[in-house]
Amino acid sequence: MASGTAILLVSCPDQKGLVAKIANFIYANGGNILHADQHRDPEAGLFLSRIEWDLAGFNLPQEIIGPAFNAIAQPLGATWQLHFSNLVPRLSIWVSHQDHCLLDLLWRHQAGELAATIPLIVSNHPHLQGIAEQFGIAFHHIPITKVTKVAQEQHQLALLKEYEVDLVVLAKYMQVLSPNFLGEFNQVINIHHSFLPAFMGANPYQRAYQRGVKIIGATAHYVTSELDEGPIIEQDVVRISHRDDVKELIRKGKDVERMVLARAVRLHLQHRTLICGNRTVVFA
Amino acid sequence: MASGTAILLVSCPDQKGLVAKIANFIYANGGNILHADQHRDPEAGLFLSRIEWDLAGFNLPQEIIGPAFNAIAQPLGATWQLHFSNLVPRLSIWVSHQDHCLLDLLWRHQAGELAATIPLIVSNHPHLQGIAEQFGIAFHHIPITKVTKVAQEQHQLALLKEYEVDLVVLAKYMQVLSPNFLGEFNQVINIHHSFLPAFMGANPYQRAYQRGVKIIGATAHYVTSELDEGPIIEQDVVRISHRDDVKELIRKGKDVERMVLARAVRLHLQHRTLICGNRTVVFA
Amino acid sequence: MASGTAILLVSCPDQKGLVAKIANFIYANGGNILHADQHRDPEAGLFLSRIEWDLAGFNLPQEIIGPAFNAIAQPLGATWQLHFSNLVPRLSIWVSHQDHCLLDLLWRHQAGELAATIPLIVSNHPHLQGIAEQFGIAFHHIPITKVTKVAQEQHQLALLKEYEVDLVVLAKYMQVLSPNFLGEFNQVINIHHSFLPAFMGANPYQRAYQRGVKIIGATAHYVTSELDEGPIIEQDVVRISHRDDVKELIRKGKDVERMVLARAVRLHLQHRTLICGNRTVVFA
Amino acid sequence: MASGTAILLVSCPDQKGLVAKIANFIYANGGNILHADQHRDPEAGLFLSRIEWDLAGFNLPQEIIGPAFNAIAQPLGATWQLHFSNLVPRLSIWVSHQDHCLLDLLWRHQAGELAATIPLIVSNHPHLQGIAEQFGIAFHHIPITKVTKVAQEQHQLALLKEYEVDLVVLAKYMQVLSPNFLGEFNQVINIHHSFLPAFMGANPYQRAYQRGVKIIGATAHYVTSELDEGPIIEQDVVRISHRDDVKELIRKGKDVERMVLARAVRLHLQHRTLICGNRTVVFA
Repeated sequence: MASGTAILLVSCPDQKGLVAKIANFIYANGGNILHADQHRDPEAGLFLSRIEWDLAGFNLPQEIIGPAFNAIAQPLGATWQLHFSNLVPRLSIWVSHQDHCLLDLLWRHQAGELAATIPLIVSNHPHLQGIAEQFGIAFHHIPITKVTKVAQEQHQLALLKEYEVDLVVLAKYMQVLSPNFLGEFNQVINIHHSFLPAFMGANPYQRAYQRGVKIIGATAHYVTSELDEGPIIEQDVVRISHRDDVKELIRKGKDVERMVLARAVRLHLQHRTLICGNRTVVFA
Repeated sequence: MASGTAILLVSCPDQKGLVAKIANFIYANGGNILHADQHRDPEAGLFLSRIEWDLAGFNLPQEIIGPAFNAIAQPLGATWQLHFSNLVPRLSIWVSHQDHCLLDLLWRHQAGELAATIPLIVSNHPHLQGIAEQFGIAFHHIPITKVTKVAQEQHQLALLKEYEVDLVVLAKYMQVLSPNFLGEFNQVINIHHSFLPAFMGANPYQRAYQRGVKIIGATAHYVTSELDEGPIIEQDVVRISHRDDVKELIRKGKDVERMVLARAVRLHLQHRTLICGNRTVVFA
Repeated sequence: MASGTAILLVSCPDQKGLVAKIANFIYANGGNILHADQHRDPEAGLFLSRIEWDLAGFNLPQEIIGPAFNAIAQPLGATWQLHFSNLVPRLSIWVSHQDHCLLDLLWRHQAGELAATIPLIVSNHPHLQGIAEQFGIAFHHIPITKVTKVAQEQHQLALLKEYEVDLVVLAKYMQVLSPNFLGEFNQVINIHHSFLPAFMGANPYQRAYQRGVKIIGATAHYVTSELDEGPIIEQDVVRISHRDDVKELIRKGKDVERMVLARAVRLHLQHRTLICGNRTVVFA
Repeated sequence: MASGTAILLVSCPDQKGLVAKIANFIYANGGNILHADQHRDPEAGLFLSRIEWDLAGFNLPQEIIGPAFNAIAQPLGATWQLHFSNLVPRLSIWVSHQDHCLLDLLWRHQAGELAATIPLIVSNHPHLQGIAEQFGIAFHHIPITKVTKVAQEQHQLALLKEYEVDLVVLAKYMQVLSPNFLGEFNQVINIHHSFLPAFMGANPYQRAYQRGVKIIGATAHYVTSELDEGPIIEQDVVRISHRDDVKELIRKGKDVERMVLARAVRLHLQHRTLICGNRTVVFA
């Protein structure tokens, strides 16, 4: 892991020679490929690829790799992202009342599971400030009402700029982000406490109980302007029975929520996710 | 298993002394309880119970047990069912094009997993007649169109009477049963090829693919007049990835469908299910 | 939950009238049964039961219930335990280097998932003292060497007495308890980082990697004097692939370990476990 | 799927330029890569790769591809296999008493899930001959005793030659193949009815019951001369409880066995498995 790999995520109209051209670019400059994964989406007519190589002994300086690869990507009609493992993403966690996803992410961060810096916690409630302090992270309490929402989102956007945030993780943040906000900042992962598309919107556990399902779940997805409709990164489920009331569903669900969210955030931070239409390709 | 147990399913307004009264009835008549399971539904204010006891050495003749228990049940305001393991239920399997659920149920029946007699297979298509013949089961091809549906359902109901069917299993039978049919015969289990309530109705795999879910599932439920809304007996899921196209979803889904349906049918045949509102209590 | 239920765990040679006699005892004294679950173990010839009833309106004072029930239990040859939800068990968590199980249990305790008091953390290493302080729990560092083990176990036993501990949870405590210790105190739950009986003993993840398994797991069990051989309470697994090296196995395993241990501890604290030979009956 | 792809499985000492050289070979000859997956095993120092490309428009005739690729592979020190989707492997299923894995494989074959021809069923018992006849497959009853084993294995090997078998699937074949047999024919997949390495050898369900595990499993692996020690292709598990006796474990286990075996056979037939030491790389 460490410092010292480059990761290229490429999405490109399918055609002959793609793997060869990308691999040649890396080989010609002295790179050793550590991981390579490809996917062909016949419906979209796209070839998607994730390639990670060792920067040790690579001939191109880091800032030249992008421009140099672009010369190859342009004629292929490819869109691409280039990431470096030594540039650690900056992550902001947003919460409301519940602390389980927040604590889980912070514990994993401490344990070295998440290659990120976490400079900022935002909440529309003041309750979790103590946790932020305990972990030495700035905490901003930004209450939201219908009236204040527009202004407060501007405040939030300003904070993201100030703290140079790359990714916002909605860790049970119970406010909907406006299309306007998402137009300004769209690197946002949310955890929804149901197995989407079942029980979109409010009170999924209550509704799961009423419906009498035998399994509940959680879904981590990229946030788009349509509520609970963004590209799904990860889902998981847990079995329940008639003995479980809504309170038990919430309790069991919390374990699934924090697992699913943590896996999704980790996949994103490792640059293993590519959005293709409203679906994700996960190079796991 | 064998022949020789009685199973009592009781649903009753919650009150003191219920377990004692039921257990005393069995003990007083010389019965040895083999399994007993209870559930209290605080929302419905109901106490639900399944008790199975050995008929060997039981003092009451089989035909007297019901009336005798009724004398206890009446003052409690209980509704109850009494089943005997030596009265084997008669099951009819209904299919359309796909054979996987049918074959799985027939194989399990042969393997002794399903305590039932299977005298009748019904299909709106002729294709699976060969399987029925191979297993020595009567096959009735009853095509359904909008025009013929009312008459054909009468035909179906007549067959259920003729073959003395206790339970109909819709093993990928792709026709909706009318409220009228269900008014005449309502012991029907269906397998729906999605994780309900996600993807109710038609083409769930196509829609799951479009939505980009990471897990698909199947749901076995009792059929009611509202499509895919009946009480759920059993569900299960299987993980998929971006590599799986709709064809793969269908293939993976078939395994979940047949497992889930078989488990639900077995639970029903063992009299382990009780409907409580639109939910099931499963005494597993 | 709250305060105010009695829980009876009964293990008894199978015979007619057991449910009736127990239920009558509760009914005769004005108790309302909230949950009742039974199991018959044909091999051991035992009938095992867990019954929980509301103490509100129960005629017997709490201290009389045991003696009164004993009069019924004696002639049946039953062994039994009586627990009260208002007597909160006292739990001690023992750790070595790793913090994930400890933190998870402490977080769940704070979240109200574990009906226990946690007065004492013991470790053979000093590293996790800070966590204990943060949660306001006494921390005792008791290093163990081959030479000091006998004396240190006496020290540990004295602490258990001093803190009136009912249950010890080995949350990745990497020392074996001696038969002598267990002779003095045997209410101990351990988490083993493999799917027992696979990979008993040391370095299970390393060995799982070498064997090339496709699934790893964790096992929570009661501790007996035979290493990793005690009655299993709970197990779970997680899928791995050839991409996962030992470090990844350890990372993925940690999530399974803390889930499995937490579930086992919760089941024990709710008095849902009964040991039957070297197996557990879990009235879940 | 169809007819018309080439699949290259390559295992090679890790070095720069591997992906480029393989991809260039395909591109230079006009091939379009459909799937490509790589894995680097740092411990073994190996780079492993599976590449599948469309033969439509590929410049090299099928019989030349191997020799041509060899010229590239040799200097890299690579070992490789080349497969063609239009050369359908020939599979022999071996059974003893139980029919569930056999029937499941045959049903999947009929449903188009297994790209293979199945010309031969071998059994050391006569019971399942009827199934072979029903599916129009040659059935050879070859009973084995300690005395006859050497001779009968020669008989079996002769049959494999006669029927030009590429893969033997031990679908609950309860005889151990001798090292001598495996020296002659080693493309053999076995299903073991436990979660290996737990419960190697005989009577795994009986022993799982005795141990009181809460989860049972099944393992599909390549057969080597050390019993139940070969490279694992696939495993899966199912949850059990104290209510499940050995008979129930067997029943639940059968579903896991047939799923796991079918998945392993399918992976092998799609040339998605590579053996690396005693582990498998599964390009799924």
